[in-house]
Amino acid sequence: MTPEPDDRPAGDDARRSYAIVGTGAIGGYYGARLADAGHEVHFVARADLDHLRREGLRMESPTGDVSLRPVSVFGDPAEVPPVDVVVLATKTTEGVAAANQVRPLVESGSAVVVMQNGLGVEEEVARVLPGATVLGAMCFICSNRVGPGHIRHLDYGKVTIGEHGADAVTPLAAGVAADLAAAGVSTETLDDLVTGRWRKLVWNIPFNGLSVVLDAGTDELMADPAARAVVRALMIEVAEAAAACGHAFDVAHVDDMLTTTDAMQPYATSMKLDHEAGRPLEIDAIYAAPRRAAAASGYDMVRTGFLEAQLRFLDARTRTRRA
Amino acid sequence: MTPEPDDRPAGDDARRSYAIVGTGAIGGYYGARLADAGHEVHFVARADLDHLRREGLRMESPTGDVSLRPVSVFGDPAEVPPVDVVVLATKTTEGVAAANQVRPLVESGSAVVVMQNGLGVEEEVARVLPGATVLGAMCFICSNRVGPGHIRHLDYGKVTIGEHGADAVTPLAAGVAADLAAAGVSTETLDDLVTGRWRKLVWNIPFNGLSVVLDAGTDELMADPAARAVVRALMIEVAEAAAACGHAFDVAHVDDMLTTTDAMQPYATSMKLDHEAGRPLEIDAIYAAPRRAAAASGYDMVRTGFLEAQLRFLDARTRTRRA
Repeated sequence: MTPEPDDRPAGDDARRSYAIVGTGAIGGYYGARLADAGHEVHFVARADLDHLRREGLRMESPTGDVSLRPVSVFGDPAEVPPVDVVVLATKTTEGVAAANQVRPLVESGSAVVVMQNGLGVEEEVARVLPGATVLGAMCFICSNRVGPGHIRHLDYGKVTIGEHGADAVTPLAAGVAADLAAAGVSTETLDDLVTGRWRKLVWNIPFNGLSVVLDAGTDELMADPAARAVVRALMIEVAEAAAACGHAFDVAHVDDMLTTTDAMQPYATSMKLDHEAGRPLEIDAIYAAPRRAAAASGYDMVRTGFLEAQLRFLDARTRTRRA
Repeated sequence: MTPEPDDRPAGDDARRSYAIVGTGAIGGYYGARLADAGHEVHFVARADLDHLRREGLRMESPTGDVSLRPVSVFGDPAEVPPVDVVVLATKTTEGVAAANQVRPLVESGSAVVVMQNGLGVEEEVARVLPGATVLGAMCFICSNRVGPGHIRHLDYGKVTIGEHGADAVTPLAAGVAADLAAAGVSTETLDDLVTGRWRKLVWNIPFNGLSVVLDAGTDELMADPAARAVVRALMIEVAEAAAACGHAFDVAHVDDMLTTTDAMQPYATSMKLDHEAGRPLEIDAIYAAPRRAAAASGYDMVRTGFLEAQLRFLDARTRTRRA
């Protein structure tokens, strides 16, 4: 039989090995944690490749810094040795390029964990890599790439993980979650990955977009009564859309997200940082995909669509100005 | 009988006299046109008072420049000699201060023309000045105050005018419209002032707000497919709200407004200029008043409320930063 990662004994020699594709705020953080916990971890980087080769990876965190030097880093996933798990931690704006690039690893037996924002991202990867075992992971984390090969973890970090197409927690999802937990990461396994994705959107849809359009940190948005009301209205809209799509969750989650954000340090969302750096915004995965899914179920995400259009305007202007 | 301005013979001596309260982009433009046409016109100014006294009023326009030097200008409406018509061309953000200040003029027989944006502005003035004859006028104009005592008219300029509380065109509304028409201004008299106000909001609600939130000119908004779709959705929402409030108009007006804006020169809205100058935004009159009127009639202006909240956030931040 083909050895499944989750069939392995728990001994050190059998620890799952990982390839982290995209060594940014997310991939850099979790990859550093897994490496620090003793896993074989290979990173794939683009912009920071030379820096990582020369200087290694530096991750600062209130729960413990990690310095990986030297670090195993590659410019192309095709060069990475076979691993148990490939983590796709690239931006969704790159489309399926990363999924296409990891095809050799998948053919050699790697499972794929899609560690991205938005809805439908696992479907995209599964479509490009038919037959692959695809998991989805969501990161509730405040983490930024503050310089080449330099990640700063500010707060939080919980990962929720589930297997695409499954209706229960699979051994592999449980295994990866256990690896992360052993590395000091708070984790939760999901019966229903899609519901988990909607729950994550409750935070991303208001804060990613409003932080860009209003040029504001999460703290500023929460402190202003008008902005806070808009945040809450967007959250309720996401919850209603999820319910319309058959992925209802307790609306108490909305107030949990507000409470969590109140307790956060001031934080610039990844979309705000992307916008400031002139990078494309993850509008399709975070806005268009859920809005279309809801519309197909007869629910009109009016506020989400409004914010999406504002983001599209700003995104297009960035591209025009850079051209 | 008390001489009504509209009862006067058409001879030069009997021309209506005007006091223009607020010598900015709007008051400066129409006041200059009326003065140039031979009317006795007194201006009330605040920031530009000294400049206007020293240098007069300069109004540049593709349809003819006007230079008024000397110009009759006052710092306080109480000093203005009795006139037939007082035009309130101040910002709605100043509330009823200007209405209170013109009480002596009203008590001496002046009618009041409220030349402001928004909904319900005549009600406010009528409440402060009980018994006054109150008219409302809306200006479809691209005009900016480009410096002290210096107005630049870019394009358009039509005035629609109607009497508050009337259900037909009154002689006074017709008379003021005739004065403006004789001064070279395109005019239209309104049977129903409130419907006229809603029709004007079809333009103001999308363009004032989006130009601020997206830091964009009208041309940029119209050229971008996503922003244009949002503009149109807001316009439709205003039309539906008007209908819910019993002030329905032909929805063809929406497409007329789009066509008109397509044909405009690139234009920074007054709200955008206010925002750039750190002045308060006319959110109550242009957003909150129509949204509340619609809500009272059972219609939820979701997009308008969303944009209003974004503007409130930005407006509050401006005040915080200046404090």
